[in-house]
Amino acid sequence: MHYNKGMTFLEQLELTIQDHNSLLCIGLDTDVAKIPQHLQLEQDSVYLFNKAIIDATSELVCAYKINIAFYSAYGEYGLNSLLQTVSYIKDTYEHIPVILDAKRGDIRETSEKYANEAFDVIGADAVTVNPYMGFDSVEPFLKRRNKGVIFLARTSNPGALDFEELLIEGTPLYSKVTQKVAEWHKEYKNCLLVVGATAPKQLEEIRKIAPDMVFLIPGIGAQGGDLGATLKAGLRADKAGLLINSSRSIIYASNEGDFAQKAMEKAQELRDQINTFRI
Amino acid sequence: MHYNKGMTFLEQLELTIQDHNSLLCIGLDTDVAKIPQHLQLEQDSVYLFNKAIIDATSELVCAYKINIAFYSAYGEYGLNSLLQTVSYIKDTYEHIPVILDAKRGDIRETSEKYANEAFDVIGADAVTVNPYMGFDSVEPFLKRRNKGVIFLARTSNPGALDFEELLIEGTPLYSKVTQKVAEWHKEYKNCLLVVGATAPKQLEEIRKIAPDMVFLIPGIGAQGGDLGATLKAGLRADKAGLLINSSRSIIYASNEGDFAQKAMEKAQELRDQINTFRI
Repeated sequence: MHYNKGMTFLEQLELTIQDHNSLLCIGLDTDVAKIPQHLQLEQDSVYLFNKAIIDATSELVCAYKINIAFYSAYGEYGLNSLLQTVSYIKDTYEHIPVILDAKRGDIRETSEKYANEAFDVIGADAVTVNPYMGFDSVEPFLKRRNKGVIFLARTSNPGALDFEELLIEGTPLYSKVTQKVAEWHKEYKNCLLVVGATAPKQLEEIRKIAPDMVFLIPGIGAQGGDLGATLKAGLRADKAGLLINSSRSIIYASNEGDFAQKAMEKAQELRDQINTFRI
Repeated sequence: MHYNKGMTFLEQLELTIQDHNSLLCIGLDTDVAKIPQHLQLEQDSVYLFNKAIIDATSELVCAYKINIAFYSAYGEYGLNSLLQTVSYIKDTYEHIPVILDAKRGDIRETSEKYANEAFDVIGADAVTVNPYMGFDSVEPFLKRRNKGVIFLARTSNPGALDFEELLIEGTPLYSKVTQKVAEWHKEYKNCLLVVGATAPKQLEEIRKIAPDMVFLIPGIGAQGGDLGATLKAGLRADKAGLLINSSRSIIYASNEGDFAQKAMEKAQELRDQINTFRI
């Protein structure tokens, strides 16, 4: 099967997972203060950095994830870097899906505008959303059926204990969210879940509730999640169904002129390491 | 007491509430498709619309709230309208606080970037945040102690029933959020809560948990919340402690050349109506 523009996000993702034999998603959370100094002097430094990372890793990933906060923190300049980066991927590697990590959500009329931001202005293929405000706050995203809608379930950060783990008649909130999102997925066929690699037991529970869904997994690498435990707990029966995200440990693998080469080596290492658990 | 730049958001807000004898917050959720046609022809139409509304209503409000989604939906153009609008308020009516309604939240490192977006790029005095991911996801906002951090507790939309109302040993999630935020407020002194006008019973409960905090109340007007019931349930002992937000029913009061005048009349009417419950 080949990529065509009529594919949904999930179809495009499954295709790229197969073609690249990869569950690796690279997070382009590029901070201008952390890129090599020789690039910092350039006008389009963030975009040039991203372009080099993308060119070096395009055959190793199943998706790129871009966290909008790293761009919005620099106003118009940041927005331009973001738009340039997404356009570059679309123009050069159009088969690779782009996830906008934005964790959006608001009342219906406002979420319509956020859907415009993610899909029409930025041109992402999928977006992360926050479930707190419930169905009407995410429906405008769900209705874009060819796009992916990725719900926070059990996140990778320490604060996940504050609310996500609260028990509702013995069932944690993140499981309640999973149950609801699994229902919505039956109807809309475009939902995914965020489950942190720092909580493999919870990941196992979530996999039981949603055996067929795809999960986006942050928390490997800089956040300390265990890869083996994560894959054991989270892989679908077909040895796929996961997007393992890594940002900092790949894109900042080197701070020198060889940064793209080193990022490629790190990406290849992680992709291959992931695949040893998929046999 | 007069306004000075050293004031915290909450001090500035309390001062404006007193000076303007108003709990009214106007939401500048400006949609270019809904503004009068004669303005749509102008290059800076959204900014010019906002400027006219602000000039007409500045003495009637205690704050302006700007929902970033309405601007982000138009990319660079929207970002410019937003920045122009905030600058205009800061240059012309610097005593009136500006709330950025953005419902942000992510892991700590990323929320740092979102705090940059809200406070440094846009220059807001307060921002709304989503509590789902817990403490470290909001700490970067809390640490900006002169800024306000406004947490979603019980929102005004139908989807609030999906998760916010789930019971944890008899206590709804929104109350658990309120308890936690009230603790954080003791430490940081800069927290507020979002409580929808569509749920006066829940508002009453939340007021009991947080008797001294300030609540931002959406849901009056277009969303159908009852003003009397809301004020009865939510006013603090000092007859303040609430920001009653209204957007569409004020800013789109007329679609003609008299839109600013009509917005002023609607704002005055609502401010005065609110005040009849504060005696």
